[in-house]
Amino acid sequence: MRKSTTPDLTKLPSRAPVEFHKEHTLRELKRIRQELIELQYRLYAENRHSVLVILQGMDASGKDGLIRRVFSGLNPQGVQVHSFKEPTEEELAHDFLWRVHQQAPRRGMLQVFNRSHYEDVLITRVQGMISAEEAKRRFVAINNFEKLLQQADTTVLKFYLHVSEAEQRERLLERTLDPDKQWKYEAGDEEKARQWPQYRAVYEDVFRHCSPASCPWHLVPADQNWYKAYVVARTLRDALLRLNPQLPEPKATRKRAS
Amino acid sequence: MRKSTTPDLTKLPSRAPVEFHKEHTLRELKRIRQELIELQYRLYAENRHSVLVILQGMDASGKDGLIRRVFSGLNPQGVQVHSFKEPTEEELAHDFLWRVHQQAPRRGMLQVFNRSHYEDVLITRVQGMISAEEAKRRFVAINNFEKLLQQADTTVLKFYLHVSEAEQRERLLERTLDPDKQWKYEAGDEEKARQWPQYRAVYEDVFRHCSPASCPWHLVPADQNWYKAYVVARTLRDALLRLNPQLPEPKATRKRAS
Repeated sequence: MRKSTTPDLTKLPSRAPVEFHKEHTLRELKRIRQELIELQYRLYAENRHSVLVILQGMDASGKDGLIRRVFSGLNPQGVQVHSFKEPTEEELAHDFLWRVHQQAPRRGMLQVFNRSHYEDVLITRVQGMISAEEAKRRFVAINNFEKLLQQADTTVLKFYLHVSEAEQRERLLERTLDPDKQWKYEAGDEEKARQWPQYRAVYEDVFRHCSPASCPWHLVPADQNWYKAYVVARTLRDALLRLNPQLPEPKATRKRAS
Repeated sequence: MRKSTTPDLTKLPSRAPVEFHKEHTLRELKRIRQELIELQYRLYAENRHSVLVILQGMDASGKDGLIRRVFSGLNPQGVQVHSFKEPTEEELAHDFLWRVHQQAPRRGMLQVFNRSHYEDVLITRVQGMISAEEAKRRFVAINNFEKLLQQADTTVLKFYLHVSEAEQRERLLERTLDPDKQWKYEAGDEEKARQWPQYRAVYEDVFRHCSPASCPWHLVPADQNWYKAYVVARTLRDALLRLNPQLPEPKATRKRAS
């Protein structure tokens, strides 16, 4: 994983470094997930900070599978996943952050965004729905918005799941052939695969403009599901360790019958 | 009415200029309200812009009465008033703009805020709930937020209803004596009257930090109800005239039976 503000996605590794072996990494992931259960419980009980995990990545980069692999063991009372779909008429009648702000986590919560406000400067650009000037205005608005959340004690973790052009093509093809995956197939998948270069360009622009030191992107090699789950889980665990949430003092103690 | 970024509230007029006479101004107000009905109808039908009217003022500056006098004749389908009360536990568990953003108007709507996000840099400061540094951060966040709304075609009109210290004291006293106004009396009203100088200071700080050229404060002399209603109505009418909303083209025309 790298933090960088001006990456070249054609040169960014999409596979695990050679020193990582699948079996060992999966054992490590299992251990980290145990730590996450404990840390998330303390985050919830302390009711002081919140955490927002933003997941972005091109089609078939494995966002859904990653959510299952990393967040499944956690207590759903303190964890929420919100998937941003195509905006409704009502949502489009407001500024682009209106629907997103509503989903910001309250204190104590761990919120996961499956896609996010970044779609408003990604697919909208590839489809020519907004101008370059509007994109620039939105970059500034996004930086301001994330800063607002951070100032309200929200830790914002942004992950870009990076699949290579070849791997994406293969995965999209699989959807048409594998009976277990056919439900994911959508008309337009072929076109999306052809659009890898366009998405690459607008993603690079996002990394260029929306990577303040206080809120960097984590660029995650995502061709292997086990590695990307490990990287996201580890990054989240480290962020929670830095927050170091504490169980509150008891409000009262029960007297012992003597 | 004045637009100014560094006013001294002890010197700001709280009464109408001498050339304004009550009866004539009330007739003028009536005429403007007729214009507002037509303009608001077109705003709603066009479904392209929205208008946000932010009303601030010290206690007993007459916000409720003003809303009644200016907005009563309009079609409630296209007009909404939101009164911001003391934040709930859920609202306090988010950043201070979270609950405000949710009430931003959609296209076509005229939204009135009776108090607003400015309370988060006013009463909170007088009561010592936030530091000067936090206030500065919030000023920036507020400017960013209003800019976001403006970029989404919302016209933001900010009014400060200015009552003098003497007039405020008299009005708060009236609440304890006039049977028709006693329902407005709240414990703490006397204290609020004593706090005029503290509120003056934090209001002046707001005008200093939250008055970009694109989103100025309108400082409205408010000791006389007829004059402040006139000023707000006129300012709103002028803003709507600048937007100049148009009825949409008919989607189809019915064929004449021949």
